[in-house]
Amino acid sequence: MVLIDTAASMIFADCSSSSSTARLLLFNTTKLQKYPDNISLFRRSNSLQFGISSRSSSRTIITHCSSPSTSAIQINNETFAKVIDGKRVAKDIREEIAVEISRMQEEIGIVPGLAVILVGDRKDSATYVRNKKKACDTVGINSYEVHLAEDSTEEEVLNHISKFNDDPSVHGILVQLPLPSHMNEQNILNAVCIEKDVDGFHPLNIGRLAMRGREPLFVPCTPKGCIELLHRYDIPIKGKRAVVIGRSNIVGMPAALLLQREDATVSIVHSRTKNPEEITSQADIIISAVGQPNMVRGSWVKPGAVLIDVGINPVEDPESPRGYRLVGDICYEEASKVASAITPVPGGVGPMTIAMLLSNTLLSAKRINNLRMPAENIV
Amino acid sequence: MVLIDTAASMIFADCSSSSSTARLLLFNTTKLQKYPDNISLFRRSNSLQFGISSRSSSRTIITHCSSPSTSAIQINNETFAKVIDGKRVAKDIREEIAVEISRMQEEIGIVPGLAVILVGDRKDSATYVRNKKKACDTVGINSYEVHLAEDSTEEEVLNHISKFNDDPSVHGILVQLPLPSHMNEQNILNAVCIEKDVDGFHPLNIGRLAMRGREPLFVPCTPKGCIELLHRYDIPIKGKRAVVIGRSNIVGMPAALLLQREDATVSIVHSRTKNPEEITSQADIIISAVGQPNMVRGSWVKPGAVLIDVGINPVEDPESPRGYRLVGDICYEEASKVASAITPVPGGVGPMTIAMLLSNTLLSAKRINNLRMPAENIV
Repeated sequence: MVLIDTAASMIFADCSSSSSTARLLLFNTTKLQKYPDNISLFRRSNSLQFGISSRSSSRTIITHCSSPSTSAIQINNETFAKVIDGKRVAKDIREEIAVEISRMQEEIGIVPGLAVILVGDRKDSATYVRNKKKACDTVGINSYEVHLAEDSTEEEVLNHISKFNDDPSVHGILVQLPLPSHMNEQNILNAVCIEKDVDGFHPLNIGRLAMRGREPLFVPCTPKGCIELLHRYDIPIKGKRAVVIGRSNIVGMPAALLLQREDATVSIVHSRTKNPEEITSQADIIISAVGQPNMVRGSWVKPGAVLIDVGINPVEDPESPRGYRLVGDICYEEASKVASAITPVPGGVGPMTIAMLLSNTLLSAKRINNLRMPAENIV
Repeated sequence: MVLIDTAASMIFADCSSSSSTARLLLFNTTKLQKYPDNISLFRRSNSLQFGISSRSSSRTIITHCSSPSTSAIQINNETFAKVIDGKRVAKDIREEIAVEISRMQEEIGIVPGLAVILVGDRKDSATYVRNKKKACDTVGINSYEVHLAEDSTEEEVLNHISKFNDDPSVHGILVQLPLPSHMNEQNILNAVCIEKDVDGFHPLNIGRLAMRGREPLFVPCTPKGCIELLHRYDIPIKGKRAVVIGRSNIVGMPAALLLQREDATVSIVHSRTKNPEEITSQADIIISAVGQPNMVRGSWVKPGAVLIDVGINPVEDPESPRGYRLVGDICYEEASKVASAITPVPGGVGPMTIAMLLSNTLLSAKRINNLRMPAENIV
């Protein structure tokens, strides 16, 4: 860890509004973009058909959730939810980060660095890594990539992690998952030093996230992005009923912990929950991260609720040139007529994940170079 | 850490049924006591008055929650919840632990050891430490006590922790809280090595508790005791709606995480929750750990629910020789007429906490001496 004796670290603002990082913000020079008044009500093309379908079981995969029976009159009388434009928010965040990084470089000569380790030849993994690299380039983060062959040994991966751990120009380390099956994923992830674990998946981070009076070093990117959207749209969380659908380590569980840190009353619905709609229909805020296309129907949603859809599910679509289209966990056509605000898929939570990865990398660079960092943040 | 090359470690069973420790149980030689069929329905003396009072706000402190208006006929028609007898379960667990320890000593010559550090002269703290020592004696755990003066330095406490960390005869270390105000509690607690943190409060433990596919080294004693009671009374958790009232680091939050690990659908109700009874009245299982006497009224409880009351609240009682009596968070008179099972206060969760501390100390001794321990459990 390199500590530079300078007060320059005081001048850098965090580009997320997350309370968990607020302690590092000595003052914030960037005015946060707020969106609620700028967003016009969303109207879809008349060629789409609307209507609340009958209740469906959570087990059913629905590739299209509208019913053709709804009349045009109904359409005219319906109001639609505000669209929470994640693409636009992510763009704004990237711009804010770029300004911070440029100032950081001018003041103390430090440029944040993100290292990504990719093992094997999975096309999807290669695309993710390329997108991360591209995003780094747009904001001025140095990216370092190591691409290892599928038949590399665990030791080789660990050696590279060890080098990045010791490299002061690297502030964040990502190991692209999944790893080849002959490698122990937990061993490898545990080798990333916690000060550079910008994914925020280390159990120590999650423990701190769960505990009152403790602060995580990093908040996992996707749930951080969900909460950031709520913040940027001035959607109140305190005292609200929130339901998280899905309890994964990387989205559902940390999203629930984040909502609770902000004083929501949180319930987690999962595959063993009986009558999930009974619970979701009481929620002021729903975050769905379950990977079931169109699972959350209109009848699952309380009128006026805010819906954050983390699911990105491909469903067959012969009319699309690719033969498929992407839909969320939430049946958009139905739910957007009941909710007050909703994230679209694509263009909602998706773009926020990489924006939050950049935000975590910047945060790490600031922390590593901040002599006056609170002791709690040093593990 | 002392590792003895012996297969004897295989023979020791865990005395809790917690799934989080199950991985250490190579086989279990102790048959768990099960209670549901042994418990007769609870009938209170006619001198007590019953009746459901009108709904009360969660802010009201109620020192007696029965209403004098209920007639004797009503009493005769009412059925009462099974009493979950924590005192008896704790006694059984202590006996099971004693058997294990005796066998451990015979087979490999190891006796579990618990070190307690007490700073200052608080009478309540001294009593707690004395009770823990007494409990250790009854099961055959060696206890080591360090009693430091109120004006000791943080460094002195840290030195003692360091010695216990290195001492192979000590398998668990407890620092009695609260510490004098001139000491940094977090620094001191963080100094206890995680393999001996039998309280289970380390953020790394809590993180592992929160994460699917990870196992904590220790489960915090009080929430472990709550779940143990449900297990011993064969109360199903999977697929049930559970509400935890209170979100403290030491009870509420870990209790919620434990319930979720067992596939309950969990909601956490706290001081910012509006209309808590709306949520609690949907729960099949309620764990209340909030420290508000009689807060949970009969109207908050779904008929047939199971109630675990962690609260131990003194309320004025001129008829008691001590001038006060202890009541729980749950209004027993009302709730026991609606619930199917309930823990009394005192004699419910209370005795379980120390029993689980002994269980964690035994578990630690077994783990430290187990050569074939899974790598995941070594930090």
